[in-house]
Amino acid sequence: MSNLHDEIKNIDLSYQIFPGSKKIYRKGGIHSSVNVPFREVTLNDKETTRISLYDTSGPFTDPDCMIDITKGITAVREGWIKERADIASIDDDEVSGAGSFKEHERLQARPERTVTQMHYARKGIITPEMEFVAIREGCEPEFVRQEIAEGRAILPANINHPESEPMIIGANFFVKINANIGNSAISYGIAEEVEKMVWAIRWGGDTVMDLSTGPNIHETREWIIRNSPVPIGTVPVYQALEKVNGVIEALSWDVYKETLLEQARQGVDYVTIHAGLLLNHVSLTNQRVTGIVSRGGSILAKWCLHHNKENFLYTHFDDICAILRQYDVGVSLGDGLRPGCIADANDTAQFAELTTLGDLTEIAWNHDVQVMIEGPGHVPLDLIKDNMTKQKKLCHGAPFYTLGPLITDVAPGYDHISSAIGGAMIGWLGTAMLCYVTPKEHLGLPDKEDVKQGIIVHKIAAHAADLAKGHPLAKEWDLAMSKARFDFRWEDQFNLGMDPSTAKAYHDKTLSKADNKDSKFCSMCGPDFCSMKITKDVRDSSTVRPNS
Amino acid sequence: MSNLHDEIKNIDLSYQIFPGSKKIYRKGGIHSSVNVPFREVTLNDKETTRISLYDTSGPFTDPDCMIDITKGITAVREGWIKERADIASIDDDEVSGAGSFKEHERLQARPERTVTQMHYARKGIITPEMEFVAIREGCEPEFVRQEIAEGRAILPANINHPESEPMIIGANFFVKINANIGNSAISYGIAEEVEKMVWAIRWGGDTVMDLSTGPNIHETREWIIRNSPVPIGTVPVYQALEKVNGVIEALSWDVYKETLLEQARQGVDYVTIHAGLLLNHVSLTNQRVTGIVSRGGSILAKWCLHHNKENFLYTHFDDICAILRQYDVGVSLGDGLRPGCIADANDTAQFAELTTLGDLTEIAWNHDVQVMIEGPGHVPLDLIKDNMTKQKKLCHGAPFYTLGPLITDVAPGYDHISSAIGGAMIGWLGTAMLCYVTPKEHLGLPDKEDVKQGIIVHKIAAHAADLAKGHPLAKEWDLAMSKARFDFRWEDQFNLGMDPSTAKAYHDKTLSKADNKDSKFCSMCGPDFCSMKITKDVRDSSTVRPNS
Repeated sequence: MSNLHDEIKNIDLSYQIFPGSKKIYRKGGIHSSVNVPFREVTLNDKETTRISLYDTSGPFTDPDCMIDITKGITAVREGWIKERADIASIDDDEVSGAGSFKEHERLQARPERTVTQMHYARKGIITPEMEFVAIREGCEPEFVRQEIAEGRAILPANINHPESEPMIIGANFFVKINANIGNSAISYGIAEEVEKMVWAIRWGGDTVMDLSTGPNIHETREWIIRNSPVPIGTVPVYQALEKVNGVIEALSWDVYKETLLEQARQGVDYVTIHAGLLLNHVSLTNQRVTGIVSRGGSILAKWCLHHNKENFLYTHFDDICAILRQYDVGVSLGDGLRPGCIADANDTAQFAELTTLGDLTEIAWNHDVQVMIEGPGHVPLDLIKDNMTKQKKLCHGAPFYTLGPLITDVAPGYDHISSAIGGAMIGWLGTAMLCYVTPKEHLGLPDKEDVKQGIIVHKIAAHAADLAKGHPLAKEWDLAMSKARFDFRWEDQFNLGMDPSTAKAYHDKTLSKADNKDSKFCSMCGPDFCSMKITKDVRDSSTVRPNS
Repeated sequence: MSNLHDEIKNIDLSYQIFPGSKKIYRKGGIHSSVNVPFREVTLNDKETTRISLYDTSGPFTDPDCMIDITKGITAVREGWIKERADIASIDDDEVSGAGSFKEHERLQARPERTVTQMHYARKGIITPEMEFVAIREGCEPEFVRQEIAEGRAILPANINHPESEPMIIGANFFVKINANIGNSAISYGIAEEVEKMVWAIRWGGDTVMDLSTGPNIHETREWIIRNSPVPIGTVPVYQALEKVNGVIEALSWDVYKETLLEQARQGVDYVTIHAGLLLNHVSLTNQRVTGIVSRGGSILAKWCLHHNKENFLYTHFDDICAILRQYDVGVSLGDGLRPGCIADANDTAQFAELTTLGDLTEIAWNHDVQVMIEGPGHVPLDLIKDNMTKQKKLCHGAPFYTLGPLITDVAPGYDHISSAIGGAMIGWLGTAMLCYVTPKEHLGLPDKEDVKQGIIVHKIAAHAADLAKGHPLAKEWDLAMSKARFDFRWEDQFNLGMDPSTAKAYHDKTLSKADNKDSKFCSMCGPDFCSMKITKDVRDSSTVRPNS
């Protein structure tokens, strides 16, 4: 591993917090050990207003935190997990695939115990995780508890990922976004993936899915989890398939179960499981233009047909939930039959699977396992609402986690835009989390810049949905920006933005002199044609009538 | 002007048509002189399918056309205009501001004649312009005539811009996009603006507005119009203000009228006129967060307050229409009181002006002048529909031409995305044309790359709206792309895309070997995890059941 360590040490993690900002923490009232980070922006207005913004970037943007990624970041939840006294250590020899971080203690529920946030919520307990989330989202802890208890929101928080800052996914909270990272057989590197994870949360990723399918799956994931302050998701069937050397027909419940346990014990916070794709659904896709486009979906379809048997993830779903509840791994019910193009949207195959996902939701809830539902894919604007309506009804209000939807197929290289457009719309209609799409979608594996672009455009979509749903903190943010714009406080506009350095660079490109930071105009209109300047002149002039 | 000529000659106009494509023309059936250009893409499928795509790039992408921009492009409409025999030449000494292109003949309607497409449509005449549009849009010429006659669509086609290829703007046609170019006092250059225009239409701009406010306004516009195959729009009050040295109070009907005539005689196809902003509307903006954000709106508000008089564009609107109908200049009724931030959306000021725009629409229609209505601005997703509904009702079905709307204020540097999201939504709901926003919006004047980015994201939004409205040609395009994707026809995917070279570059970045153009996978998933490959395997295997 010496090469890996050298490689890891060379990662560029020298991220400063955004200019004009500092990391602040707010303490819990119920649980004094709760410390919720925010990015506080100090404005240059008369009142030196301070505004706190939601912040997922973790300790990497806190100059007071020493980061040594070979040791992992601080386990902020460790005390909370242990205080509940419903867990026990796992013997080392039971933990498979150990590599780096061998000293990291692995936990599981004590016999007959369930350690999920849903379990606590249903018992009426407000955990520190729930209070953390309430402070972060600007709501009451009891509201958080209720939403989790009733399955409308999930708080993915594996007891083996104590490094994670609690984060909630539900339609009545900020709309979240997920960033996919992970290597493939064509492109791989552990250091690269860790760097992408830290990069992804800098720009606003709320969760990160490690979709690695190449070499070193276990080891890559371990490095990511030990250093991630956000929940980590995976698709376990990818690793299970690697274990049977890529031979789909050789997959079995046993190898899947072993993989699931391995990942639960590493600290994966939620897993995508394609348990809703049934044998009799497959033929429904025969007339499709692009067939099955979910990787997991196509694997299980092939397995079902080859063996002429029902999907083992469906037949073993009770067993799966019995494992997940011992670690608090959330289940994200995969949409293996999502449409892969506009022509296939909202077809029989898609909605047949969605109906099954609704049945599985109830099974998971019987185990107190937290559930969300994955959604399409490629859907034109006019068919998006039908997806949201059916999901709400068929899946009993469980959170919807959508890929896009992409609202056209004709813009390869710009599919992040096609996805953000559909994402904003479905986010407003009630989707809880958007899976990002990068400019490289359908073309290749994203690099760092692609990850950033993918995150920012989906963050815009999610925030647009928050505004449309009337989230007071979302409105506060826009109002601060609008006031800064009207006052020509350029630095404040940059600092309040989603990407301060880009905004500043664009501004400086055409008005580069330092004193132009105080200009009462920009190069777009120049001084004589600046409407805001003229409006100010009008308001200042004596001819303005008072507002009648 | 020798410097200018040198500068012009150095413009890079060596644009090839996209790879795999050639320019084709379809002849008219009613008018044999009608020749409608398309981009025809030849696919590498078994049938060597050809697909024709809507194309606004003009002669610049036709290798058979010789381009000499010092002479201007071919006047394709010249014969049609003259055949109607309702026009006459204007004496040279009557044409103000002459500079380059002095030899270009200037026309106006003969006394008491009206030369607008609306006028002909109402008389039951299908002009060559209407047939051109019908072929371009895939509909019947009679349908085009009806839509224009009833004011639901406009075909901006100044008789002094015979170089323009007819293009229609209306909710029952492809959703169009406009690209703004133009210099400001901070950044200017005629050659640069001509280059931007050609660049804008290469990427899909349907109209171009020249919003120049800097030096050489007349001359810049002349070069743009003489070389533009798409309709050109302007905001005449900008030039009128330059004529009174930037002193808003010194503006008058006389100087405005002179400017309007000058522009009509140059060939401007539509003009934004802020005639709906009334004196008593101004105080309605007093409590706004960002006041008046339309350049034209703020100018007229200041003029009204200073003189304590009604807006001269309102009081002279009949006179304005009497001029416009002699040249077929369309009027785009400006939304001087559009909201400039989320907090100001859908307020009393905005809708008071919209009501007035509805009244003005009827006045213009009385003159057979073609009208569209400009719309906001900054509007959160939940308030967009109300804008579209009110516009349709208050403005009697006249086409809506919207800026964005931007659905959040917090992403400077990415406002083209915020705008495309709102644009897709309002386009689907019935907006006829989207005004693009570039990444530099609110920060500075866009450069070439900004123009391209702004156009492509709005083209995606417009196309998404076309798909959602069920346009058969829009669906055909997506279907061709989806089939190419499922067949792993990589080159076809690139060639069918909105930006072939970017898609190809992204693909090649991670799979650069030439033979990987035939790969049955990409680097995103690698060969073992490609869902489409697995789906094909499944379909090819004997275990596939026939579709039941």
